[in-house]
Amino acid sequence: MMVSANSMEAGAAQPHGGDLAAASALFPQAPRPWIDLSTGINPWPYPLPDIPASAWARLPEPAQERALCAAAATAYGVADPALLVAAPGSQILIQTLPFLRAPGHVQVLAPTYGEHAPAWARAGHRVEQVAGLPSPDGPLPDVLLLVNPNNPDGRIVPPASLLALADALAARGGWLVVDEAFCDLMQELSLAPGIGRPGLLVLRSFGKFYGLAGLRLGFLLGPESLVAAMADRLGPWRVAGPALLVASQALADIDWQTATRARLASAHQSLKTALTEAGIEPVGGTALFQLVRSPDGVDLFTALAQAGFWTRRFPDRPGLIRLGHPPDAHSFGRLCQILRSY
Amino acid sequence: MMVSANSMEAGAAQPHGGDLAAASALFPQAPRPWIDLSTGINPWPYPLPDIPASAWARLPEPAQERALCAAAATAYGVADPALLVAAPGSQILIQTLPFLRAPGHVQVLAPTYGEHAPAWARAGHRVEQVAGLPSPDGPLPDVLLLVNPNNPDGRIVPPASLLALADALAARGGWLVVDEAFCDLMQELSLAPGIGRPGLLVLRSFGKFYGLAGLRLGFLLGPESLVAAMADRLGPWRVAGPALLVASQALADIDWQTATRARLASAHQSLKTALTEAGIEPVGGTALFQLVRSPDGVDLFTALAQAGFWTRRFPDRPGLIRLGHPPDAHSFGRLCQILRSY
Repeated sequence: MMVSANSMEAGAAQPHGGDLAAASALFPQAPRPWIDLSTGINPWPYPLPDIPASAWARLPEPAQERALCAAAATAYGVADPALLVAAPGSQILIQTLPFLRAPGHVQVLAPTYGEHAPAWARAGHRVEQVAGLPSPDGPLPDVLLLVNPNNPDGRIVPPASLLALADALAARGGWLVVDEAFCDLMQELSLAPGIGRPGLLVLRSFGKFYGLAGLRLGFLLGPESLVAAMADRLGPWRVAGPALLVASQALADIDWQTATRARLASAHQSLKTALTEAGIEPVGGTALFQLVRSPDGVDLFTALAQAGFWTRRFPDRPGLIRLGHPPDAHSFGRLCQILRSY
Repeated sequence: MMVSANSMEAGAAQPHGGDLAAASALFPQAPRPWIDLSTGINPWPYPLPDIPASAWARLPEPAQERALCAAAATAYGVADPALLVAAPGSQILIQTLPFLRAPGHVQVLAPTYGEHAPAWARAGHRVEQVAGLPSPDGPLPDVLLLVNPNNPDGRIVPPASLLALADALAARGGWLVVDEAFCDLMQELSLAPGIGRPGLLVLRSFGKFYGLAGLRLGFLLGPESLVAAMADRLGPWRVAGPALLVASQALADIDWQTATRARLASAHQSLKTALTEAGIEPVGGTALFQLVRSPDGVDLFTALAQAGFWTRRFPDRPGLIRLGHPPDAHSFGRLCQILRSY
């Protein structure tokens, strides 16, 4: 499917998860508070350390940013902190990256997170949404972009085939961009250890796995010159003082990371079982979210919303909804009850 | 002085204030902790309210951002919140604004904050640093930029003459960009009430007056289409959840603002008096900082650093240093003592 810049820009207006004001406007009668299952954010956040007043008051120091990048390089398995740059959210990296090269032909592996294609179109690139990856030996675009594991369907592409594509793209000056927003849960998929080779760029999101999406932190991993160009675009003091402090600690906390992977895997299994037992087809997902198809004749999105559960639907894919984890046993039990009633 | 894009980019490497790791590296023998006078940030910050866990955990909601913009519009005197956009720091607005128009001829009223000229050069504009403002009737650049009141010398340009320039620039498709980073202290200078007219753009910094530079928040004020273009560039969830919450409260707290203006004005008077009594020439400043000239034969920057006071020097203007406010009576007393010894 070829999509013009204009229609892609219009696509950017598609609503995101997490907007409970919108939920309340659409379903004024729903019980409150909302149980928000509309995002893929870990509902059991990294425990906030004490934040000294100076982190709020002072300009973040370059040494603090270097410490964060060192912690991120270790956590992600990147050989050198100079191969990554921190930014106030991966979204701003998604928005800015397309301006770091001349307009060209961009392929986005679809369906996927809705902000990538419009971001490239906004920078004047010709964006094509493709259903499968090209062969490294065949015709290639200038930039190939995918989310791995994919949002919302959890589709996985093995690292070896991506590295072959990255090399083929790099040989003609192209880029492979992999959004690894949900890769903390499947580190074996990450291309971070290969970072440094030409043309390979990886996006990482801090807020999803660590459950701190409001803190706004993301990373671009790539060749040193590109990472430096991004830093130059966004300027100094990109990341807030409290975010530098919290994330430096969280990214180094291997015990918490290990326990959280286990907790999310177990919660994911429980959610899948509950769905299957209710006769609802799980279409795919990651340990942070589950994509399901509404049973025939049932509008699961509306039914759940009327019961106070806010999920994510996809206007262009009717019948599919994405669910995150209920934050506690009570809300999980209520969800199971509602699902079983269909 | 005409400056090429390349030499301006090199200029961006000039060190900023607030980097105490750099201070310690340069003056390893200095007493600690450093008293940091190297920035123009209010040392008496707005008291942080309790920040609910959800502000860290959840994606910031559009309604929260709208509430922040409404509070900012009221605080700054902008007629409509649609005429401003919030960003994670005014620096990222400085970096991004030059990409919102085609490369042209940019005049920056110099000397001033060092990041403006390189930001425009980075986007391909021809940047000229000028010592005085052009006449509205004479030849004009495509973009005219100044900081008002100016950093570091406190130079003031009256609003009426700026509005005349804005209109003359707008008549030929040009922009007047006014960085009002220190205008919370002299609201009568602000062009915010005139925002909405074509070609007039204003930058506001939250962190300096409210003493919360680590929180990262700034605003671009301007015509609705330009403000929307900036929002589109930076993308959703630009501002962190805690920042939205703290700043919405601070911008609406008129009592605190009034008391802080008085406190800073009084501290500024005390600092000026101390300097004059020590025979040190005050060159200019605002209520948040004072620019002074070292007495003949004295390297005031080094002398203060060796005593544990970190100030801001300007490599291209030897002999001048900028001082912020010592945070308490003890450090103010020590500063006076050191100044009197020259």
